[in-house]
Amino acid sequence: MNRPLAIPGLAADIRAGRRAALARAITLIESRRADHEAAARELVQELLPATGAAIRVGITGSPGVGKSTTIDALGMYLIEHGHSIAVLAVDPSSVRSGGSILGDKTRMARLSAAEAAYIRPSPAAGTLGGVAAKTREAMLLCEAAGFDVVLVETVGTGQSETAVCDMTDFFLALMLPGAGDELQGIKKGIVELADMIAVNKADGDNVGRANRAAAEYRSALRILSPRSEHWHPPVLTYSGLTGSGIDTLWQKVLDHRAAMNASGEFAQRRSQQQVKWMWSMFEDRFKARLRGDAAIRAKVKATEAAVAGGRITPALAADQIAELLR
Amino acid sequence: MNRPLAIPGLAADIRAGRRAALARAITLIESRRADHEAAARELVQELLPATGAAIRVGITGSPGVGKSTTIDALGMYLIEHGHSIAVLAVDPSSVRSGGSILGDKTRMARLSAAEAAYIRPSPAAGTLGGVAAKTREAMLLCEAAGFDVVLVETVGTGQSETAVCDMTDFFLALMLPGAGDELQGIKKGIVELADMIAVNKADGDNVGRANRAAAEYRSALRILSPRSEHWHPPVLTYSGLTGSGIDTLWQKVLDHRAAMNASGEFAQRRSQQQVKWMWSMFEDRFKARLRGDAAIRAKVKATEAAVAGGRITPALAADQIAELLR
Repeated sequence: MNRPLAIPGLAADIRAGRRAALARAITLIESRRADHEAAARELVQELLPATGAAIRVGITGSPGVGKSTTIDALGMYLIEHGHSIAVLAVDPSSVRSGGSILGDKTRMARLSAAEAAYIRPSPAAGTLGGVAAKTREAMLLCEAAGFDVVLVETVGTGQSETAVCDMTDFFLALMLPGAGDELQGIKKGIVELADMIAVNKADGDNVGRANRAAAEYRSALRILSPRSEHWHPPVLTYSGLTGSGIDTLWQKVLDHRAAMNASGEFAQRRSQQQVKWMWSMFEDRFKARLRGDAAIRAKVKATEAAVAGGRITPALAADQIAELLR
Repeated sequence: MNRPLAIPGLAADIRAGRRAALARAITLIESRRADHEAAARELVQELLPATGAAIRVGITGSPGVGKSTTIDALGMYLIEHGHSIAVLAVDPSSVRSGGSILGDKTRMARLSAAEAAYIRPSPAAGTLGGVAAKTREAMLLCEAAGFDVVLVETVGTGQSETAVCDMTDFFLALMLPGAGDELQGIKKGIVELADMIAVNKADGDNVGRANRAAAEYRSALRILSPRSEHWHPPVLTYSGLTGSGIDTLWQKVLDHRAAMNASGEFAQRRSQQQVKWMWSMFEDRFKARLRGDAAIRAKVKATEAAVAGGRITPALAADQIAELLR
């Protein structure tokens, strides 16, 4: 990518569904070189009219819940029903190198071999804001390339989950059946965000336990006011291993979309998300300037420490940091 | 306040507990005049070493739940036990004029007549960030004036609740017993924030209903992972009218403080809050500049509309807005 970048040509290749062009474009988006960033901005703007048609689903769950198995099963189910699937991730702690998808290929055995799927790991480690911004733009490129379902996985730390919820239409929380009487607690942040809770591993001896867990979660959700009066987050069971219940799970995603479209909330959520992205990118611009220079970075750190230690007021500290940007 | 402000003298009067000086200082904090803002900043910085010793409790609940009756009863209970109480509020929709406390005086009949209490209504309408910042600084002044319990009331919209939770040590959500079989739903945001849920109006014929409501809330909270492993938010019943249960309610606040102190989370939460205030004030500085000029405001609005309508990317829009600040 040291030659001048021909953005219109690259955009046309992406719209024609050329996989190599898509991969190259996402690498461009992930680059931190200033000329690459400018080119990436131009590319996304150029492709913008071709974006927005996919169903965007965020998926979270603790380690061991079976996220990859679930995405593999759901992805294959959707491909059998004529869809094409892009799988992205937001993991700011990721230490995988930018291009390698070896880890994900192994974890999603069938999907990674499927023609109609494209799996891209999380951008390499960085600030959550930066990683989320790159994943959002990668999602737009996948849509322009014709993928009609985008699954965005997160590792399940609070802020990553909010970031993924803010870029998707439907946020799915995966849970495990309890071991014996022990029921896995739902993280409070998840109750706030989830459009559905799905209990995995409802297979073999586990079916009863999974059903009991679902009943408990359902009864807890019952006394919480839903985010939308048009959607009460359902709780269901399924098996990523056998595929049982995957069809019902997907039907709920479609039901949600129909309900949100009927009430007008779908378009509203999408446009609110876009405005929120704008402000978060605006703030990131300033924070990046504060991080960019070692001397400024040291002063910000000292100011933060003085505020945390109660030596100066937050107001005075905010002024001092604003002054650093002059 | 047209004479030059003698900040050291005002600070000394506040530390001496002079009520008139405190009221004058809070009015100074609430002023939007540039010279007042500079003086307010100096004053808060001067008083900073005298702040931080109070127990800060945030209180939320839907209209009709009996917030004022509760604060009146809790405040009188605390005064009887030797405390002095400041009552503040965050209500960005407030249309009450800056100085009038007539409304609050009426609503908190006993407390407003008590020598050991100071009641101050929400700063007048403005952005949530602005209103919250002024309330936070008013809280610091009240602490410097010697009040050892600060109650901060919020009207119960999601963002105000987060703002009040971010400035207090303990966040209390008030609920009503259901009417018949109807149970009042807990707002999801509240589950995330609350350190305790208290069901009001457990008096007379309502006691049974209040207990049943508490049991239901308790069972719902049981399967949510608590924010801290050292504190599982309790659910209890009380009556603001008769005062029954107010002692247990306060004991829980003290238990929480002891648990948080023992685990080190108390100091951690306070210093994280201060750093968060700093960044939110830093961001407010920029947003204020974007709102300050009519031409810039119009351009920001147009840019927001273009992003919401999907005509330009959030990245491009963020650049355009950053450009307006040059």
